[in-house]
Amino acid sequence: MTDRLSQQFAFLQEADRLKGVLRAGRLCDGSRFENSAEHSWHLTLYAMVLADHAPSGVDMARVLKMLILHDLVEIDTGDVPIHSQNGTAHASDAQQAAEAQAADRIFGLLPPDQAADFRRIWEEFEANSTPTAIFAKSLDRVQPVLQNVANGGGSWTDYDVTLEQLDARVGSKIARGLPDVWPWLRNRILPFFP
Amino acid sequence: MTDRLSQQFAFLQEADRLKGVLRAGRLCDGSRFENSAEHSWHLTLYAMVLADHAPSGVDMARVLKMLILHDLVEIDTGDVPIHSQNGTAHASDAQQAAEAQAADRIFGLLPPDQAADFRRIWEEFEANSTPTAIFAKSLDRVQPVLQNVANGGGSWTDYDVTLEQLDARVGSKIARGLPDVWPWLRNRILPFFP
Repeated sequence: MTDRLSQQFAFLQEADRLKGVLRAGRLCDGSRFENSAEHSWHLTLYAMVLADHAPSGVDMARVLKMLILHDLVEIDTGDVPIHSQNGTAHASDAQQAAEAQAADRIFGLLPPDQAADFRRIWEEFEANSTPTAIFAKSLDRVQPVLQNVANGGGSWTDYDVTLEQLDARVGSKIARGLPDVWPWLRNRILPFFP
Repeated sequence: MTDRLSQQFAFLQEADRLKGVLRAGRLCDGSRFENSAEHSWHLTLYAMVLADHAPSGVDMARVLKMLILHDLVEIDTGDVPIHSQNGTAHASDAQQAAEAQAADRIFGLLPPDQAADFRRIWEEFEANSTPTAIFAKSLDRVQPVLQNVANGGGSWTDYDVTLEQLDARVGSKIARGLPDVWPWLRNRILPFFP
């Protein structure tokens, strides 16, 4: 039991570093860049609030776990802003390899049974093919949109994003997981792309 | 549907302000004070990791929801450091009234069914009487202890906390929700109270 607790607390202490990983988006009030830990918390709240817009087949308890874990690899890799990737929303092979290595190291701090369990949850999120993962991923795309609307453009301005790029990189994923939310949201985005 | 989404997104935007509420404790690396949003995320991770130490009768999915919501009232009231309260870990009547008013305002931004649901979850956490709430509250006490151990004393030093005060304010709650963790943890605390 003592060894197990030592491993668990070592993992929880290492996870604290996610609070120091900065994202490309700013808070709703524009005052500073958001970190990946507070972003992860906000996503879990998004999941609770938007649960009634989830397509059928979504396991809400597992959505929360996915969102809690989804960015931990950034402790090693940092956040890769979606609009910085030369026009693609897909991670490069090198980035995927780096994230897999980070997952090995970080989840590997846990007792083996939990390491395997957490790793499976993270991999399901990354694969984005189950209804649960598709819903969780759509929340990860919605939250920065609302943030940019609130703070007056944010990372869209910083990265010279066009509406076509936003539709391709963000809208397509939101439409999959939150089909009735995307049309509503897109109307609020249009004023930023005159 | 449109009105419902407007209310939901207004609540989610207001919740963003929790990222600006600072707590009395510093990050594990001691670099800065922690905010209540990233603290809430960390607690949900604590819940996932320490689930196997939970007493029977704990609803883990509800624990996560409690921890996601538990500090939202601080957007209006701020965080009241546990060691700043003249030797008591219990909130004053005035503080409780302020938090109830904050809950009215903040949860009141949501559609009425969700406002009532979220309010019940928060009230269950505050009442600290169900096994689920007792476990969630114990996590809220454990995480700052680990932080202070990691950063070399933290808020214990700032507030001149004695071991007797720590046992009373923190240890008693951890012992209720995580009975097999507290003895292990207390051994790690002793070097800070020579």
